[in-house]
Amino acid sequence: MDIQDLAQRVIAGERRALARAITLVESGRADHRAQAVALLEATAPEGRQALRIGLSGTPGVGKSTFIEAFGMFLIEQGLKVAVLAVDPSSARSGGSILGDKTRMETLSRQKNAFIRPSPSQAQMGGVARRTREAVTLCEAAGFDVVLIETVGVGQSETMVAEMADLFLLLLAPAGGDELQGVKRGIMEIADLILVNKADGPLKETAMRTCADYAGALRLLRKRVYDPEGFPKALMVSAVTHDGLPEAWKAMTELADWRRAEGHWDKRRAAQAIHWFEEDLRLGLLSVLDTPDARAQINALGARVSNGTLSATRAAEEMLAHLKI
Amino acid sequence: MDIQDLAQRVIAGERRALARAITLVESGRADHRAQAVALLEATAPEGRQALRIGLSGTPGVGKSTFIEAFGMFLIEQGLKVAVLAVDPSSARSGGSILGDKTRMETLSRQKNAFIRPSPSQAQMGGVARRTREAVTLCEAAGFDVVLIETVGVGQSETMVAEMADLFLLLLAPAGGDELQGVKRGIMEIADLILVNKADGPLKETAMRTCADYAGALRLLRKRVYDPEGFPKALMVSAVTHDGLPEAWKAMTELADWRRAEGHWDKRRAAQAIHWFEEDLRLGLLSVLDTPDARAQINALGARVSNGTLSATRAAEEMLAHLKI
Repeated sequence: MDIQDLAQRVIAGERRALARAITLVESGRADHRAQAVALLEATAPEGRQALRIGLSGTPGVGKSTFIEAFGMFLIEQGLKVAVLAVDPSSARSGGSILGDKTRMETLSRQKNAFIRPSPSQAQMGGVARRTREAVTLCEAAGFDVVLIETVGVGQSETMVAEMADLFLLLLAPAGGDELQGVKRGIMEIADLILVNKADGPLKETAMRTCADYAGALRLLRKRVYDPEGFPKALMVSAVTHDGLPEAWKAMTELADWRRAEGHWDKRRAAQAIHWFEEDLRLGLLSVLDTPDARAQINALGARVSNGTLSATRAAEEMLAHLKI
Repeated sequence: MDIQDLAQRVIAGERRALARAITLVESGRADHRAQAVALLEATAPEGRQALRIGLSGTPGVGKSTFIEAFGMFLIEQGLKVAVLAVDPSSARSGGSILGDKTRMETLSRQKNAFIRPSPSQAQMGGVARRTREAVTLCEAAGFDVVLIETVGVGQSETMVAEMADLFLLLLAPAGGDELQGVKRGIMEIADLILVNKADGPLKETAMRTCADYAGALRLLRKRVYDPEGFPKALMVSAVTHDGLPEAWKAMTELADWRRAEGHWDKRRAAQAIHWFEEDLRLGLLSVLDTPDARAQINALGARVSNGTLSATRAAEEMLAHLKI
């Protein structure tokens, strides 16, 4: 594969080249990995930056229809939009979010849109690296907005927030008791809470939900990288498209302020450091993932399990075996 | 230090020897570590097993008074009781649970009791290893029950559950809305929920709380290692001592059943494997914790941070530097 040629075609915005490039970064093969790193370096000098938007919401809040409506809205503003999905459970469940071809039908037909389902990979570390590398490839390809979609499961939200400039939490209208369902950790990383389905018979409930969350957000500690009035809660309807311009205005306002105040660059730098350290940890732990290491671990494990060897001593023996 | 002599004195049940042995396993020094491992091996052949009881509860539920009352109850049954505290936050907060000398005043004066506060150690991995090694030393010293106390913070509960035979969750009587405060993950590892302060004006509230949790426990998926009727919720009073015999009866019933059904041994074996793998991971990651490695990481980090080096490439360079 001619990596320089592929890089040029990614930079020229060819969608098929971009798809191929992402397939390359997703591969687990060692030779593909070397090519992927070379590709990322060949596309990096463009220095293009998209607005990276992380988006989370549990099943049922209308994530697909929201992305479809919001993506179309952005395209109508003359912007190019990429959508990437992160679903760490897809390997287990067999399915994957965005895997359904009927999702986002209108958006997927736009020439200024690029939609990529979650790969079937079991390991969270692998999913994280693949996704952030796919994000930078989308940036190199000239996309203005990269939406990184995830489900509200496990640690995937924190992971997505660590690679996004803005983090949106999409919620459905709900009564008082159900409010407890949002994990505190998610409230703390959200920049914008969008209450979807603010239309028809649910509009009143949506208004109350929105007011409740606005109140809850005010109780949280102020973050240095938030201007006055943020984080905030807004209502949207993926069906009537009400609230989409206001939501986008809030996002650009927040992004502009963070750029002007230096928080944008600082955060991207901190995120890069985070991923460097994360990759380093994963790389170190990968020495345990060879046939020899696994055989050794199993042999020691059998002795630990029957009580003839202590966990502490077994770990020491394994480290000695690895010459560490 | 004569390790064989120390081991003999631990096995003879000398409390000062046990205290010294625990200090040794808590030490971060490399020469102490080698001695600690030798000590653990010298005390292991006795094969003594205590009932290891993990106990969690947020501040305010009356954990100290419960342990004092429950510990005294066990001593009155002719049992020897050790209490170990796990507080991963103690290094940060400067204080430590069990650090206050006035806590458990009566229990601490008993010759059949041994109380050990949480060491001031920052790293969760270090706290975990120290605690499980201290537990095995208490077993070697002939204690019948080892209570491992933790606060309901972060991952310390999961960690304690991974080294306990039974896990108790201590709660205070509370009204309907406050029930939401218990993390779902904790409900799933609890074998017994004890609603404390079931005395005086709070008794009625305690009864309602207990019934609510009993209902909640029934909604959870059945675990293979639970007999009929478990996990269960009971009321206790650390002040009047009401409910303590019933709580202890439930614990021994559960422990006996698990022993008879083979779950006890299976679980201890699985826990040993868990700690072996955990120690191995920590040992591997410790190669990043040398002055040279830290300097190299900082140098690479500076380039990642200013955008002249990708996170992926930086990790590769660091792994090459470490010859991994």
